[in-house]
Amino acid sequence: MSERNSLSDLEIARQATMRPIEEIAAAAGINAAALELYGRYKAKVDPSLLAAPEPAGKVVLVSAMSPTPAGEGKSTTTVGLADSLARAGHKVMIALREPSLGPILGMKGGATGGGYSQVLPMDEINLHFTGDFHAVTSANNALMALVDNHIYQGNELNIDPRRMTFKRVLDMNDRSLREVIIGLGGPTQGVPRQDGFDITVASEIMAVFCLATSLADLRERLGRITFGYTYSRDPVTVADLGVQGALTLLLKEAIKPNLVQTIAGTPALVHGGPFANIAHGCNSLIATQTARRLADIVVTEAGFGADLGAEKYMDIKARIADVAPSAVVVVATVRALKMHGGVPKDRLTEPDLEALQAGVANLRRHLHNVEKFGVAPVVAINRFSSDTEEELDWLLEWCAAEGVQAAVADVWGRGGGGDGGDELAAKVASAVAAPNSFHHLYPLDLPVEEKIRTIAQEIYGADGVEFSVPALKRLAEIEKNGWSGLPVCMAKTQYSFTDDASRLGAPKGFTVHVRDLIPKTGAGFIVALTGAVMTMPGLPAAPAAMRMDVDDAGNPVGLS
Amino acid sequence: MSERNSLSDLEIARQATMRPIEEIAAAAGINAAALELYGRYKAKVDPSLLAAPEPAGKVVLVSAMSPTPAGEGKSTTTVGLADSLARAGHKVMIALREPSLGPILGMKGGATGGGYSQVLPMDEINLHFTGDFHAVTSANNALMALVDNHIYQGNELNIDPRRMTFKRVLDMNDRSLREVIIGLGGPTQGVPRQDGFDITVASEIMAVFCLATSLADLRERLGRITFGYTYSRDPVTVADLGVQGALTLLLKEAIKPNLVQTIAGTPALVHGGPFANIAHGCNSLIATQTARRLADIVVTEAGFGADLGAEKYMDIKARIADVAPSAVVVVATVRALKMHGGVPKDRLTEPDLEALQAGVANLRRHLHNVEKFGVAPVVAINRFSSDTEEELDWLLEWCAAEGVQAAVADVWGRGGGGDGGDELAAKVASAVAAPNSFHHLYPLDLPVEEKIRTIAQEIYGADGVEFSVPALKRLAEIEKNGWSGLPVCMAKTQYSFTDDASRLGAPKGFTVHVRDLIPKTGAGFIVALTGAVMTMPGLPAAPAAMRMDVDDAGNPVGLS
Repeated sequence: MSERNSLSDLEIARQATMRPIEEIAAAAGINAAALELYGRYKAKVDPSLLAAPEPAGKVVLVSAMSPTPAGEGKSTTTVGLADSLARAGHKVMIALREPSLGPILGMKGGATGGGYSQVLPMDEINLHFTGDFHAVTSANNALMALVDNHIYQGNELNIDPRRMTFKRVLDMNDRSLREVIIGLGGPTQGVPRQDGFDITVASEIMAVFCLATSLADLRERLGRITFGYTYSRDPVTVADLGVQGALTLLLKEAIKPNLVQTIAGTPALVHGGPFANIAHGCNSLIATQTARRLADIVVTEAGFGADLGAEKYMDIKARIADVAPSAVVVVATVRALKMHGGVPKDRLTEPDLEALQAGVANLRRHLHNVEKFGVAPVVAINRFSSDTEEELDWLLEWCAAEGVQAAVADVWGRGGGGDGGDELAAKVASAVAAPNSFHHLYPLDLPVEEKIRTIAQEIYGADGVEFSVPALKRLAEIEKNGWSGLPVCMAKTQYSFTDDASRLGAPKGFTVHVRDLIPKTGAGFIVALTGAVMTMPGLPAAPAAMRMDVDDAGNPVGLS
Repeated sequence: MSERNSLSDLEIARQATMRPIEEIAAAAGINAAALELYGRYKAKVDPSLLAAPEPAGKVVLVSAMSPTPAGEGKSTTTVGLADSLARAGHKVMIALREPSLGPILGMKGGATGGGYSQVLPMDEINLHFTGDFHAVTSANNALMALVDNHIYQGNELNIDPRRMTFKRVLDMNDRSLREVIIGLGGPTQGVPRQDGFDITVASEIMAVFCLATSLADLRERLGRITFGYTYSRDPVTVADLGVQGALTLLLKEAIKPNLVQTIAGTPALVHGGPFANIAHGCNSLIATQTARRLADIVVTEAGFGADLGAEKYMDIKARIADVAPSAVVVVATVRALKMHGGVPKDRLTEPDLEALQAGVANLRRHLHNVEKFGVAPVVAINRFSSDTEEELDWLLEWCAAEGVQAAVADVWGRGGGGDGGDELAAKVASAVAAPNSFHHLYPLDLPVEEKIRTIAQEIYGADGVEFSVPALKRLAEIEKNGWSGLPVCMAKTQYSFTDDASRLGAPKGFTVHVRDLIPKTGAGFIVALTGAVMTMPGLPAAPAAMRMDVDDAGNPVGLS
């Protein structure tokens, strides 16, 4: 049971004994030539030097019910499940996203799991890691410096500075940079224009990085990025500017997946991390495929709930390579189900069977959605200390009545290396071994608006979709530019099936409002914006950074 | 002789056979516990785990005559000299600055020496390296995000947004970011104010990073940084905001020096890299001191000519720790001397003894300046293929007549690992072994304006100094805030002893104009600005990035 004892995640992480990363690599079947050490406990794996067969491992995708501010523990479950599968004798590897520095300095402490289900070294993974996000930041900002320099030096490409669709980025929560004016100071200082900064994980380069199948494919995709339009409204790409080579050069080391270990010693590739709203929210495809060459079962994760993360995994990532999941784990908590059943956030620790019974409607829709892709869901009930036996028993019975496999897991408190995830692992292993009939939700030759309608109706449960006037204009533009064959990447609140974050549970009789569409021609999808999407977070009144420090021995303090 | 053959620096570098960095470390006396690998040929050295005695190695400081756009090859000489000293049997280590990414994408290809005197792996050192500069960028921008968030959240410290003295940074040449307006978009997006971005190497955090003696001292210095003033004109420091801990945490890995090797296998610590105008222009003090624990002779470099780099090394860096040089190498070239003698840049390859004879006046003043610190200069004549024997012989004779040791070196073409620097190494070794009487140019208790006057008159040869009205106001402010005891860091053009870049040679009868003073209370010096200082470079019409790429095997292309 998740007794939230007095130890912080950082303290638990620091008490753990790590094995040298060479040992982890050797046990995972990574030959020395393919391994490049970054300190003692981190390494990069070069897939081109890897003496391992073609990808064949089966994928377990960890997704979730609609998340709540209470936190459902998806990364913790991913780590704990993998540890439990390893404990049961399976050859397992984890594939996870890298944490972004901005939120670490802002709200939360880190993003490497929690309790006794963490990837290590948590402090180094959370702070700079092997520099991948810095490389993405550099490539993104090199592109924009080159674009603005092109305009300044005469603008041969006829770029319209008012129609730029690409921004500079920082891996920082910096509200003041959301809307800026650049190029001030007179004729020798640039060309003034309105601009803004996104956080690095929102960069299309991050999405490209995570969908590329190789360094050569990365170069191709970077070249296809549309960063703006000409005065005659034609798209201008990175290849038009001719700098895809330089951007690839800046990313050539970063594109190699990073190997670390869990507290229990399970190997994990932690690599890439695009936003889950305006991008697809999974670790790099290269990491997933590398893990599939090395392990029989790859446990990976997709951002937000199954309506967003899992759908995008299936319809975007799993179209590029054969990474379709053999099982989808849907993480649920009693707390979150009660919140979807109408309980306010500050009363979630009180027993409330009635609210639980109302809230499962949310979980049910997610489970049915997973089945629509031809894959069997497994419910992971992530246990918290406030859960009552009555609530847990009822939930297990409900799952059984729904015909869905389910298990209570306490990977936070007891760890997957302990017995916290044994039952979950057994059910997941069975699901992986069973046949499935995976298929995408929609064919690519469906018109873009029909793709959006299909997702909204089939997955969200909407009655229909309403397109704003700008969105309709954009649809015509997409048609004209030949981008209609791309899949859709929905940017919608993660808290609700609707585009209104306050409508919890499993709402019916609603319309999804698409206010704009953003073609991401490098990543290879069309983002459909429903509601406002924050691509540059701000810091709270008391940022986590205020508590961070180093102690006298140089050890980190204040990460959690 | 420097036959500029058809091989680029990158090609020469790639033909070189590197030894595993563990071997280089072991040969240098670095115990395994203190070594953290970053790939096969880079490592960080943790000084706190180093089983080596206290710093005792002697320092050779490589400086130069007033530089010209033709390039004098100071880094190349530093590397080649160290290789030559090693070849002669000395226990040698190099301490160099890390290159900045911005200029690499812009004008020049890299900053790791040239020809057969390079540090390797040149491509990785030039691109991201071990991420130190990214960590400095993160720390700098975290500070500014926290400052602007503080203002947004209620501004308890009463910070005046119009009197901010600290900017955000990117390691990029990005002219458009020099002058910007941030915080636009209304009340939820921040507080609008005028701002700008500097290049990362111009950040005070970079200067602090390079002058800190330990992690604890780094934390203290970060806390002392003044980032702006209150509405009542009082300075506001990082410690007032309380985020020195978080910034230190962001820098705790970066602060460990990076070990690499030269083509000849000499160990080199490449670490830190502050601007040489608004900062002091040397690699980190921690790297210099680490090298002094491991080697008998440490060859290091200071930015620009001896009037700037060497003076700052002596009066800023060598006050913090006992790193005073035992010898100063002044790099000179026949080409640069001819330019100082009046020959235009495009005719420097033509023999011109008369111009050479006129130009040595520049070198003479630098040599006398070095002697003013009680240290013997050694002239390194960096040979180019256009130099005639007559010119070289005359220059050697002139040095002899001046009573100064000198040698012609061809470390670019023949390498210090070859015989290109044997004679220079022998003369430097003699100078190091001879006694010297090092002293600073001025005592710290001299008033700031007198410190500036002393440097201007003693080192530059000026008649006097003129302070602008704003500079005089700032002097009063410095006095009021108790900063008068800090040393001075002159920001002056590197091309001339005067503050006018066009006045070459050894001008007389001029006044130095101080237009403003910037207290850098974290780094611990007062910057005196003479003329305009560019702290955010721009990209040229044909940026180097346009030629950069990766080949089909993933190897870098277009670095030079």
